[in-house]
Order: sequence, then structure tokens, then C-alpha cells
Amino acid sequence: MRIAELSRRTDVPVPTIKFYLREGLLSPGERTSHNQAQYTEGHVRRLRMIRALVEVGGLSVAATRDVLEKMYAPGMSVLDSAGKAQFAMVTPRPVVEDAAWEAGCRETEALLERLGWHIRETNPARRTLTSALATLYRLGQTGQLQLLEEYARAARRVAEAELALLVQEPDQDALLETAVVWTALGDSVFSALRRFAHEDVAYGASAPAPEPSAQDTD
Amino acid sequence: MRIAELSRRTDVPVPTIKFYLREGLLSPGERTSHNQAQYTEGHVRRLRMIRALVEVGGLSVAATRDVLEKMYAPGMSVLDSAGKAQFAMVTPRPVVEDAAWEAGCRETEALLERLGWHIRETNPARRTLTSALATLYRLGQTGQLQLLEEYARAARRVAEAELALLVQEPDQDALLETAVVWTALGDSVFSALRRFAHEDVAYGASAPAPEPSAQDTD
Repeated sequence: MRIAELSRRTDVPVPTIKFYLREGLLSPGERTSHNQAQYTEGHVRRLRMIRALVEVGGLSVAATRDVLEKMYAPGMSVLDSAGKAQFAMVTPRPVVEDAAWEAGCRETEALLERLGWHIRETNPARRTLTSALATLYRLGQTGQLQLLEEYARAARRVAEAELALLVQEPDQDALLETAVVWTALGDSVFSALRRFAHEDVAYGASAPAPEPSAQDTD
Repeated sequence: MRIAELSRRTDVPVPTIKFYLREGLLSPGERTSHNQAQYTEGHVRRLRMIRALVEVGGLSVAATRDVLEKMYAPGMSVLDSAGKAQFAMVTPRPVVEDAAWEAGCRETEALLERLGWHIRETNPARRTLTSALATLYRLGQTGQLQLLEEYARAARRVAEAELALLVQEPDQDALLETAVVWTALGDSVFSALRRFAHEDVAYGASAPAPEPSAQDTD
């Protein structure tokens, strides 16, 4: 197909496609004349993945190139590719290695030990969790640590449902794209549903919830 | 207490406290001489909340002032204050009102209807969820919509545990601080645990997980 159709199929504007070609995110099409090239279904899929990484993951061009290289490295299983991409999509936060950070590290290790989960040292979620727990220590809010097991149970149920759905996808490229997109989007979805649940639980499920700006009589 | 002790108690440096005083985030202490003022436990609590909003919520000074005004508006219940603060802590994303956005809106409404949850029109989580679902539509990944109910169940269990723990807090200021801090941090905690669960479920819970960079023989 020509670049105009590639654009139509992927909803990516032609100038953006040309930019991705120049930046090496997308491999060149097969040149058919001095100013025309043909693109394939492979280009459609790659472009959809680039769009997913940029729009959903919020990745820069450099970070997207890095993720794509890791995802499509030779000899990787789909699971490993998805894992690599997900590891690369986490923006590392600056670490302050104070006493609270050390306490957060210990809590993270202790939790994984209690859960019996086998997690690689390289999984960036270790740092995400440690950072959140360190903040609890810094603010003196360690009472919330009691909630970790309930969170872990909820996360495990969700993860099992996600993987069960994922393995039904016969196309490996589509599976990879779904894994990357949904892993990132799922965080927003859970965040929104948790806030909905807070409101519904706090104000009671049966009565219509009042506007928070309205006068409260109770 | 003097400003040095206020700093020690809250782990906020004196110049930062002076900045918050100038910016009106913190009310002035009681002046005891031309260059000294006395601060109270109320200042300690307010300063902890400011730190929580800035560090955890990532809020700017202007946004923090806005949240504090809403939280401590007269005549609000603790629940309403916490709700106001949480509503204000969501950074609104730009909305592209295309067909995918419309589809996302419909999905959000249909889900709340199925769940029977009463959610205010003003809850910014509506927009968060709609935005995530619109992205699924734009990328043609609507198969993942099947996961919404499992997500909602998980979110509800977590929210119930959180509110049950929260109402045990007798001090209203501490309750408010916890609600604000934990609502924001809980998202990171769940995100990390979900990634842990993905790894543990994908690679099997019994065998030690291989490093993704190692050669795979299976």
C-alpha cells in the first residue's frame, strides 16, 4: 500500500509517518519509483504499536525506539518481549536513599516473601512499590501498610484474568500490542474504578449521592 | 514552638516553610518579637498535609492552595473534604471529543449502570475512565473491555478495606491527611503489585523466574 493508505489504516498523519521513518522507528517501505514506496501489513502493525507507546505510554521518540528494539530483539518469546517493553515503559523516579527508603525496601521484600511471589530483581515495579512505601514512612502513615495484602489479592485476581484473556489471542503481534497497551491503560482504569468505589461505598450504594458542593444536613 | 522546631517536626526545611508562609499556604504564627513567631500543632498538621500534596500528589503551589481551600472550607464533613481534595488532585487531561471518546463515554455509563454504583457527574474519575476506554477504541483493542467487571470487583474490595481502616482513625485531621495521601499512593501500589502478579502468573509461581536477558531454552 502507499503511504496515504498506511496513514488511513493507522490514523497516523502522513507527516508523522515520515517523521517516524526519518527517526528510524519505522523501517522504510519498498521503493517503487523515485518518490513512492510500498508499505506492508507489517508497517501497519508496527505503526499501531508506535502509536500505542507514544499515546498510552507517553514515551518520547528515543524511549519508543528503545522499547521497540527490546520488544523485537531476535530470539525472544512473546512473554519476554512484552516483559521487556513493560520494564522499559516505567519512567525511573529519582531515589532518595534515606531511612524511609530502606524501610520501604524491607517492606517490599517482606511482602513478596509472605506472598511467595517470584519477582526478578530487574522488575522496575520493585522500585515503584518501594518508593510509595518510603513516602508512607516519611509521612508517618504506616498504618496503611495493613492494606498491602488486600491490594496484592486484588492485583493477582486482575492479573490472572488479564493473562487468561491475553493467551486467547492467536496473533503474536496483536498479543504483544495488547499486552503493552493494556498494561499501561489498566492502571488508569483501576484508578478510576477505585475512586468510583470510594464514592459509592462512602455515600452508600442505595441512595443517590449528593453533590459535594450542596448543603449537607447529616 | 519556634520555626526551627516546626521544621524538625515536619521534615520541611525552614526556607521552604518561609516560602509556604509567603505564598499563603500556611497561616502566620503568633508573633512574639520583631523576628520571632510561635507555631502550633495546627501548623504541624497543615505542613504535613502540604508536604503530602506536593510530594505525593505532585501538585504545584497554586494547585496545593486550591486543594487546601477546598479541604478546609467551612461546614464540610470529613468525607466531603476528602472528596473535594481528591477531585482537585486529578490533573484534567485534554479531551478529544471524537467517535472513540463518545464510545468511551457510553461504556463508562453502561458500566456504572451494570454495577449499580451512584457516582456524581463531577467525579473526575469519569473522565479518567472515559479517556482510557476511548484509547482502547482508537487502537481497536476493545477486547479488553471484558476485563472491566473484574477490575470493578477488585477496586470495590480494595475501597471497602480502605474505608474500613480509615474510619478507625479518631483524629479528623489525620483521617483527612491519610485519605488524601493514600488515595494517590494506592494507585502506584496497585500498579506495582499488578506488574508483580503478571510476572509471577506468567512465569509460574513455583519455579524461580529467569532473568529476561538470559537465554531462554523453552
